[in-house]
Amino acid sequence: MKISLGEIATLVNGRLCGDASLIISGADILRDAKVGEITLASSAAMADELAKTSASAVVVSNEFAVEISHIVVDDPQAAFAQVVAHFRPPYHRVNIGISPHAFVSPTARIAEAVNIYPGARIEEDVQIGARTTIHAGAHIMPGCCIGEDSVVGPNVVFYERTLIGSRTIIHGGVVLGCHGFSYEQVDGKHIAGEQLGNTVIGDDVEIGANTTIDRGTYGSTTVGEGTKIDNLVMIGHNCRIGRHNIICSQVGIAGSVTTGDYVVMGGQVGIRDHLNIGDRTAMGAQSGIMHHLGDDQTVFGSPARSIREQMSMIAAMQKLPALRKQVLALQRMIAQPDKNNEAA
Amino acid sequence: MKISLGEIATLVNGRLCGDASLIISGADILRDAKVGEITLASSAAMADELAKTSASAVVVSNEFAVEISHIVVDDPQAAFAQVVAHFRPPYHRVNIGISPHAFVSPTARIAEAVNIYPGARIEEDVQIGARTTIHAGAHIMPGCCIGEDSVVGPNVVFYERTLIGSRTIIHGGVVLGCHGFSYEQVDGKHIAGEQLGNTVIGDDVEIGANTTIDRGTYGSTTVGEGTKIDNLVMIGHNCRIGRHNIICSQVGIAGSVTTGDYVVMGGQVGIRDHLNIGDRTAMGAQSGIMHHLGDDQTVFGSPARSIREQMSMIAAMQKLPALRKQVLALQRMIAQPDKNNEAA
Amino acid sequence: MKISLGEIATLVNGRLCGDASLIISGADILRDAKVGEITLASSAAMADELAKTSASAVVVSNEFAVEISHIVVDDPQAAFAQVVAHFRPPYHRVNIGISPHAFVSPTARIAEAVNIYPGARIEEDVQIGARTTIHAGAHIMPGCCIGEDSVVGPNVVFYERTLIGSRTIIHGGVVLGCHGFSYEQVDGKHIAGEQLGNTVIGDDVEIGANTTIDRGTYGSTTVGEGTKIDNLVMIGHNCRIGRHNIICSQVGIAGSVTTGDYVVMGGQVGIRDHLNIGDRTAMGAQSGIMHHLGDDQTVFGSPARSIREQMSMIAAMQKLPALRKQVLALQRMIAQPDKNNEAA
Repeated sequence: MKISLGEIATLVNGRLCGDASLIISGADILRDAKVGEITLASSAAMADELAKTSASAVVVSNEFAVEISHIVVDDPQAAFAQVVAHFRPPYHRVNIGISPHAFVSPTARIAEAVNIYPGARIEEDVQIGARTTIHAGAHIMPGCCIGEDSVVGPNVVFYERTLIGSRTIIHGGVVLGCHGFSYEQVDGKHIAGEQLGNTVIGDDVEIGANTTIDRGTYGSTTVGEGTKIDNLVMIGHNCRIGRHNIICSQVGIAGSVTTGDYVVMGGQVGIRDHLNIGDRTAMGAQSGIMHHLGDDQTVFGSPARSIREQMSMIAAMQKLPALRKQVLALQRMIAQPDKNNEAA
Repeated sequence: MKISLGEIATLVNGRLCGDASLIISGADILRDAKVGEITLASSAAMADELAKTSASAVVVSNEFAVEISHIVVDDPQAAFAQVVAHFRPPYHRVNIGISPHAFVSPTARIAEAVNIYPGARIEEDVQIGARTTIHAGAHIMPGCCIGEDSVVGPNVVFYERTLIGSRTIIHGGVVLGCHGFSYEQVDGKHIAGEQLGNTVIGDDVEIGANTTIDRGTYGSTTVGEGTKIDNLVMIGHNCRIGRHNIICSQVGIAGSVTTGDYVVMGGQVGIRDHLNIGDRTAMGAQSGIMHHLGDDQTVFGSPARSIREQMSMIAAMQKLPALRKQVLALQRMIAQPDKNNEAA
Repeated sequence: MKISLGEIATLVNGRLCGDASLIISGADILRDAKVGEITLASSAAMADELAKTSASAVVVSNEFAVEISHIVVDDPQAAFAQVVAHFRPPYHRVNIGISPHAFVSPTARIAEAVNIYPGARIEEDVQIGARTTIHAGAHIMPGCCIGEDSVVGPNVVFYERTLIGSRTIIHGGVVLGCHGFSYEQVDGKHIAGEQLGNTVIGDDVEIGANTTIDRGTYGSTTVGEGTKIDNLVMIGHNCRIGRHNIICSQVGIAGSVTTGDYVVMGGQVGIRDHLNIGDRTAMGAQSGIMHHLGDDQTVFGSPARSIREQMSMIAAMQKLPALRKQVLALQRMIAQPDKNNEAA
């Protein structure tokens, strides 16, 4: 796997400044690269960190001066990815077709070039589009439909009639279409509401490991095309998530929330039920959203406020102990007005 | 699947006001229903939303006036469920018995009419009650006991000796009876405590997808009958959760917490270890519970306070910037008492 | 399983004070023990609770006086564990070897005395060290390497090239090495960053159920030896978690965070991306960490502050309504200075 710096420069079609015969043994990020390795400095902001690296060479754009051997390219990220792939070649999708150890219902309709791994289970009336991969241990319940060129990770569960777009990536342990959390109390018991709906995921959506999205009560819980969802997120029943949202890890969205397009939620955000969130609105990490939000808002805190309000409130809170002392001083002054006049 | 409005009225035994020959192509909730579809308005509070619907017909109670074709029934939710089921018939449990592709220990005792799907694993000494379904990929470790008429979802894991009541629903990816999180530091290493206990789930409990409940240290972590738990909840070791609790998504309950009956926890609530929570006490979403709570409390915030205290504190905080200005003005007045007298 | 108190005293090599012929039917913790059972009081702090127990006997150290029959030992926890194990013998690891129903690539290298359960899948180039157990439904993707004496729970997923140390315990439903959550917006679409790295777990690490740890972008996301991670935790891409950390349930750590050794995070803590946390620093439950933290800090709150600052701020906030009244009173006094003088 070892390779000379000159060969790396050729590989990434870059301009070499330094010793072409230097043997490079690996590639790692600035923080972790060791002697003999090549690293990446993708922007001038990394100059300080670069000055301290142990790496023997670096891939850079032509933005800044570097002391160690370096390779200059137009797109350092793409070039470094090529270098990393040399040392650690990615495992590519192998066409295995439908494993004889998968459980596939005879009523399922499977398009061409689909991979289904051992132990996956495809139940009746399921449709799977061309070139989609279903990993081991995934359980696709009756009536589900999955588009083309998608990847369904290991141990994923799709409940009945879950619909998945094309070019989606659903990571390990995701559960879609599970029952909504909605009960009516009758004679001291919680009776579950109807569970007749499903979950519908648009094209180009990515869903992180162990995330759960419940089905609609009568209709669908939907996630719009291009939306990206991180690990361990919960999206409740009847939600209608817009297109191109970014939903970070451990966000919880209660039932019947609607979001616009390009909405961004930081980690651990919570949104209460039945709220509408406008386009391009951003919520800081751990925010608790208790009211509707219009377009282009930026909020944080719990309860969430506009970033401006929240910042001024936090500033005022920090000065609160000082304020109390000022008030006490005023009280003393007023109780002894003569002293006050003398001081004045 | 298309059906006339008259036929729908007959199906739900309702009174039709409108065109019986109208052909209906689907059923969806108010927010999502399109032209040609029938929708539901279950209460007068939905009148405004109903006025804006594109739906061609609606199922209502006799509470309020409607302009479009409608079907009046006593229980609109139940009637609409029938309509939805016409368009999207639910997949019913099929009796498949014990799949030859399931792994069932010869020492397991399986009652009548149990379904065990391919890839499920039932280890030694496990007991499963009548009419219970074990979905694909579920792993039931030695000594577990599951009651009657229960559903264990795909890829569920029960560690050793987990006990599950009757009529329970355990959704996909749930892990019960995992080791508790308890360590003692010895010579700079964290040494795990004993893990001899188990997890015990009462009758009529529902547990949402990917939730985890750890085993007790020596005894049991228990969840009382009728309690409903949402997705991605964590319940720590030795907890004793009462009956008929409602525990929303992403709640975290640390070790040895005891709750009464009919306790309600909003989403993302956290409860510290060794606390006792009284009957019927409710915690708002994202609350952080740091002290014992009696019966019939309503708290929120982190740290949590009574809803009354928390509200007055939030109100005071919002006026804090104004308060600071008032104090500054007072300081100025006192520094110039003559000016103040003139102003008076 | 019933046994006399005398026999129990012999079993744990303890000194019996009470009726040796008393028949004991079970063992449970103080809170739950019933008549006829033996319980544990491991410290004098439990004296009050012990006075109220229904248990018929108790295992104690010689620290305090007890009224009921008791067995005195040097290490009550260890002795009680023996007693519990008598009544509820743990299921021990059985050597099953490699199940014929597991899917093991011919290129995998499996050391001696490894157990692989039915339905587990071991892909190409995987290495598994001696005496390690892979439970049913675990999916180990190409290029992974697992050390010796480790346990990989049911339905665990390791993505490509995940490296796991020796003596680790990975609980059910854990997903390691999943794609990082990092996108660049191009022409209105979120384009995923490179996913060439992996996840590396040190020796003696324990990871709780359904936790997820993403792979690095180019290099590794790492967890240092001896660190213990609870259920439903999320650790983002490129993080470098130190040694002997304690990370409680539902903690979320964003990308590229570095922690020192012996760091402690309470439940539901959130840490923003690219922060450095020093050695032995502790974060209270639900804290939101927004800045770097040095060594030996103790913080809580969201945004997190030192425990001292946060406490004084919370105290000041609680007195805020009173403070507002004081300021109003001052305003009135200054508006009527004569009245004020009279009062003085």
